[in-house]
Amino acid sequence: MTRYAAIEAGGTKFRVAIAEGREVVADTTIPTTTPRDTLAATVAFIQANGPIAAAGIACFGPLDLEPESPTYGSITATPKPHWGDTPMLDPIREALGGPAAIDGDVGGAALGEWTWGAARGLAHFVYLTIGTGIGGGLFIDGKVHHGAGHPEMGHIAMEIVPGDDYKGHCPFHGACFEGMAAGPAIEDRWGSKAEDLTDREDVWDLEAAYLAQALRSYTYVVAPERIIVGGGVMQVPGLLERVREKLVADLAGYVTSDVPEGVGQYVVNAGLGQDAGLFGAIALAMGAHRA
Amino acid sequence: MTRYAAIEAGGTKFRVAIAEGREVVADTTIPTTTPRDTLAATVAFIQANGPIAAAGIACFGPLDLEPESPTYGSITATPKPHWGDTPMLDPIREALGGPAAIDGDVGGAALGEWTWGAARGLAHFVYLTIGTGIGGGLFIDGKVHHGAGHPEMGHIAMEIVPGDDYKGHCPFHGACFEGMAAGPAIEDRWGSKAEDLTDREDVWDLEAAYLAQALRSYTYVVAPERIIVGGGVMQVPGLLERVREKLVADLAGYVTSDVPEGVGQYVVNAGLGQDAGLFGAIALAMGAHRA
Repeated sequence: MTRYAAIEAGGTKFRVAIAEGREVVADTTIPTTTPRDTLAATVAFIQANGPIAAAGIACFGPLDLEPESPTYGSITATPKPHWGDTPMLDPIREALGGPAAIDGDVGGAALGEWTWGAARGLAHFVYLTIGTGIGGGLFIDGKVHHGAGHPEMGHIAMEIVPGDDYKGHCPFHGACFEGMAAGPAIEDRWGSKAEDLTDREDVWDLEAAYLAQALRSYTYVVAPERIIVGGGVMQVPGLLERVREKLVADLAGYVTSDVPEGVGQYVVNAGLGQDAGLFGAIALAMGAHRA
Repeated sequence: MTRYAAIEAGGTKFRVAIAEGREVVADTTIPTTTPRDTLAATVAFIQANGPIAAAGIACFGPLDLEPESPTYGSITATPKPHWGDTPMLDPIREALGGPAAIDGDVGGAALGEWTWGAARGLAHFVYLTIGTGIGGGLFIDGKVHHGAGHPEMGHIAMEIVPGDDYKGHCPFHGACFEGMAAGPAIEDRWGSKAEDLTDREDVWDLEAAYLAQALRSYTYVVAPERIIVGGGVMQVPGLLERVREKLVADLAGYVTSDVPEGVGQYVVNAGLGQDAGLFGAIALAMGAHRA
């Protein structure tokens, strides 16, 4: 059976898997140290488990995803030591000697959700992950949308909830969406980690208010068919339901789709959980094989 | 030479034109009264100036633009008397006996700008009109993006500028973008029409702050190659430059494209001015003819 290599390249670790179809038959985790060492270990694992038909990479960024660019498939200006201006696609393709494809971590996760998760069959959706940061992937007309550069959906402006005097945690924008609602903002604001606050109504009411407000803005800007929410923060029991309720209130009946009645289908958890990125890399490999 | 009929169907008037290529050879304006009378006058004008190869309609909304829907091409739940649930595409196509195509007023204007205006050659852009309301059209991968229903880009949430205690003018959301920055909000807030306030620094500093904030959110959500701003409010001298300056400040260096250096090419006035919708209707007619 055809084998594919999938690489979920993250800032702290690389998850590398060999898949037959969507079934993972071998996998490993490699710490993200230097490009030379991490890529060498990645390639060695794949070669030991081959032959493979193609490889897919869902990679942390920022990335150059402009197909005409001479540095297409490279990590660009990351603050992460050693990894600035690092080609990813070319070295892996050359080492493996077969077709390979790359996308960003969030775009890759969106592709995974579209192929096997909570977005199957949709033409347009938003994939949002709320954890140590907030990342958003936009899927339009059956493919990941990049645009000029790529979206940074976590950095939209926020209407501050009345009475909230927290100044925000984003080093660029202060009180943007990520600055008000990602995990580090929750910890900074309340003095405890999200997982130690699960029984605090006030914490999750406020969190849901900011999440719903962002979902309202995405709804008005791109009119997606669905918004998929994943990441660590969304594991808090009851948060998803609070977000749905507040979103319906925020839209105030002003919608061109059936969101109010259908909100339970409109805002949903990720179907692949923490594996969306890895499955996205498998889907990228399959796409490279077909191309 | 091949003739096309273009209909810009607005809530107060219909602009109807006959074009040879992009050159308008005959045109008229018909008041928007009842569907029966207005459509009859529209069809009569076109028939008197035919024969035409195809017709295009850029129409006020909300519209049903879902191709599979039985009411595709109809105005849906508008508060405008007589016009709720009014088919537009079918009656015009049947009366004229040839191909016809329809899009929304803002989507049509975006298509006009792409075909002959300030967005030629772009794959992805935002078209924004700031007048009695704020409407936004999203153009992705060479076509108008509708999504589920269609975008309502004027209704995103806003971070209130410190010291601003205006409550907003949107009947649905109060202080959303349209509620804070459209023409009626300016008049309500300052007690004068925009055109009588052109020398007021404070008015346009505040207006530019909200416009820039919205452009920042569009930038982060869809990563467009350009944002085209049109409509009456944008005619105020110097406003465009203020918006560019504040947008660069708001992005705070956190961008994946060359917006800071290239902001003069990134935020631009509409190339077709008030004619974008009519030219969009010509482009729709040409598309229907080719199809």
